[in-house]
Amino acid sequence: MSGFVGAEAFCDIPTIADVRLAAERLRGRVVRTPLLENAALNEAVGGRVFLKAETLQETGSFKLRGATNRLLQLDDSQRRAGVVAFSSGNHAQGVARAAQVLGVPATIVMPSDAPALKVARTKGYGAEVIFYDRATESREEIAARLAGERGAVVVPSFDDPAIIAGQGTAGLEAAEDLARLGVAPDLFISNCGGGGLASGCTLALREAFPGIRVVLVEPEHYDDAGRSLLAGERLPIEGYAPTLCDALQTPMIGAYTFPILKAAGARGIFVTEAEVMRAVAFAFRELKLVVEPGGAVSLAAVLAGKVEVRDKAAVLTLSGGNVDTETFIRCLSA
Amino acid sequence: MSGFVGAEAFCDIPTIADVRLAAERLRGRVVRTPLLENAALNEAVGGRVFLKAETLQETGSFKLRGATNRLLQLDDSQRRAGVVAFSSGNHAQGVARAAQVLGVPATIVMPSDAPALKVARTKGYGAEVIFYDRATESREEIAARLAGERGAVVVPSFDDPAIIAGQGTAGLEAAEDLARLGVAPDLFISNCGGGGLASGCTLALREAFPGIRVVLVEPEHYDDAGRSLLAGERLPIEGYAPTLCDALQTPMIGAYTFPILKAAGARGIFVTEAEVMRAVAFAFRELKLVVEPGGAVSLAAVLAGKVEVRDKAAVLTLSGGNVDTETFIRCLSA
Repeated sequence: MSGFVGAEAFCDIPTIADVRLAAERLRGRVVRTPLLENAALNEAVGGRVFLKAETLQETGSFKLRGATNRLLQLDDSQRRAGVVAFSSGNHAQGVARAAQVLGVPATIVMPSDAPALKVARTKGYGAEVIFYDRATESREEIAARLAGERGAVVVPSFDDPAIIAGQGTAGLEAAEDLARLGVAPDLFISNCGGGGLASGCTLALREAFPGIRVVLVEPEHYDDAGRSLLAGERLPIEGYAPTLCDALQTPMIGAYTFPILKAAGARGIFVTEAEVMRAVAFAFRELKLVVEPGGAVSLAAVLAGKVEVRDKAAVLTLSGGNVDTETFIRCLSA
Repeated sequence: MSGFVGAEAFCDIPTIADVRLAAERLRGRVVRTPLLENAALNEAVGGRVFLKAETLQETGSFKLRGATNRLLQLDDSQRRAGVVAFSSGNHAQGVARAAQVLGVPATIVMPSDAPALKVARTKGYGAEVIFYDRATESREEIAARLAGERGAVVVPSFDDPAIIAGQGTAGLEAAEDLARLGVAPDLFISNCGGGGLASGCTLALREAFPGIRVVLVEPEHYDDAGRSLLAGERLPIEGYAPTLCDALQTPMIGAYTFPILKAAGARGIFVTEAEVMRAVAFAFRELKLVVEPGGAVSLAAVLAGKVEVRDKAAVLTLSGGNVDTETFIRCLSA
């Protein structure tokens, strides 16, 4: 990791070298997910869209990458003391599964309104789950207290160099596959919560394709990354709004992720709930993929014409598929 | 194609050479679909299961392979006169899309109870759709009459050497991917209607892995392939029963497909509607894939323990994902 010069220089920002090291560490431990292209989607938008299908990653989202990369760097005493994480569900599953495979005890702090499927799956991976109220309690404080009591290591969901480097391995794979296809993408369009996946993949894709433009997509009311990039400094979300995109309900872009995205000249846009639901239904009908709402915001942006891809090549993330049956049915019926 | 010695020797049965020629013809014209492995599935069955995800093929099923291989072998006057096909939906879409891409007029004869999604998609590819009553009319006669009137070529849905060879390219890809992984599968488990996909893939997989055992999976009441293999001769289904597996509702295994399956020592089993619905729900929940009931019978057989894969490696087909929203919701709620 190299020091970063500027306003956010208090920490070591990960680089492409860290992403490459993570890829070596993760080899054989995570699924090398396919980069899919779909004729119906291409015809709908008039360009070439390449979908990095992290829905097909083990645990149903990209989060296993970062969690495994972080847990593989624990020392023996840390492994024994275990890990604590807070997450609405995908990071929870990623940490729980990585911990299960590596024999590390895991405690996960989840919001009481987390999708039932995500809670059940997290418990299924052997983790202890503790609930909190998203509107009134601070998950960071709860996790820090638990970590203090148990001597456990907190595994952040995005704002950590090892997590960012791990998520970036998805971008590295996409870059390899695009190079093999002879395609130099014009655009990288990423779902964005705290920016772990977006910043890690940006490192990998900008290394392979220096001219690529980076667009972050967020749900309406959670466009803190877009506003932060416009302002040139990190801004929190304003207030609380319900959203189907639980995976992207982060209060602020990360201190480690923001400088990477800023340096890449990324910009942000947001999509409405209705646009997201239509994208989930499109993925069902045309892509034959189960994508959760928070995993479908980039697809929604492209389908709604909010990112113009006509006559262009774009790579975008389908970041997760952990959606409750009820929510999925609601999207299909919309 | 080589002549086949035996009771069914009235025709040229395709060989692995035909599958290889088809693969050359299809390069760049069909999606090279991923071979997926899923930890939750492996853990559920205690073995390694490799899923050939033809759900991710263009048109949502493997049928584009055979149709394209067949249409590429039309001469100029045949191309102008057009093609006729009869199909409940997946072959319809495959032929319609292949015809659209190659600029050939297509007429598709579909049962009046075909899933609405499949009808809409077939029309969406520019084909003319003509309906018939599955219980009282003969689709073969209707198609033959239309072909006679219009001078068009009938494209059979499975019982044709070019169709079989085309579908076999899915098996060729699976064999390549398995070899790359260093896995020699013990079992090939195939969804089976008329046997086009099953026989084509059997040619490819037995060439690569001579010891592989072939198991065909059919829906209850449509186990004609299994009974035919036991009897050593082709037997039709008995009576008509409603099934969610519209894609596998064929009256009899093919004259071209049966000898290939028989020579491979294939055996057949069947699954119930309830087992199929649970497999569709499992694919939604764990695989994050949309699989239609007829595309999920092999998965159903493995999950129900009807094919034992403990401590074995098996490759199976997820052959299609064209399922109506209502049927899909019904499966998720089962």
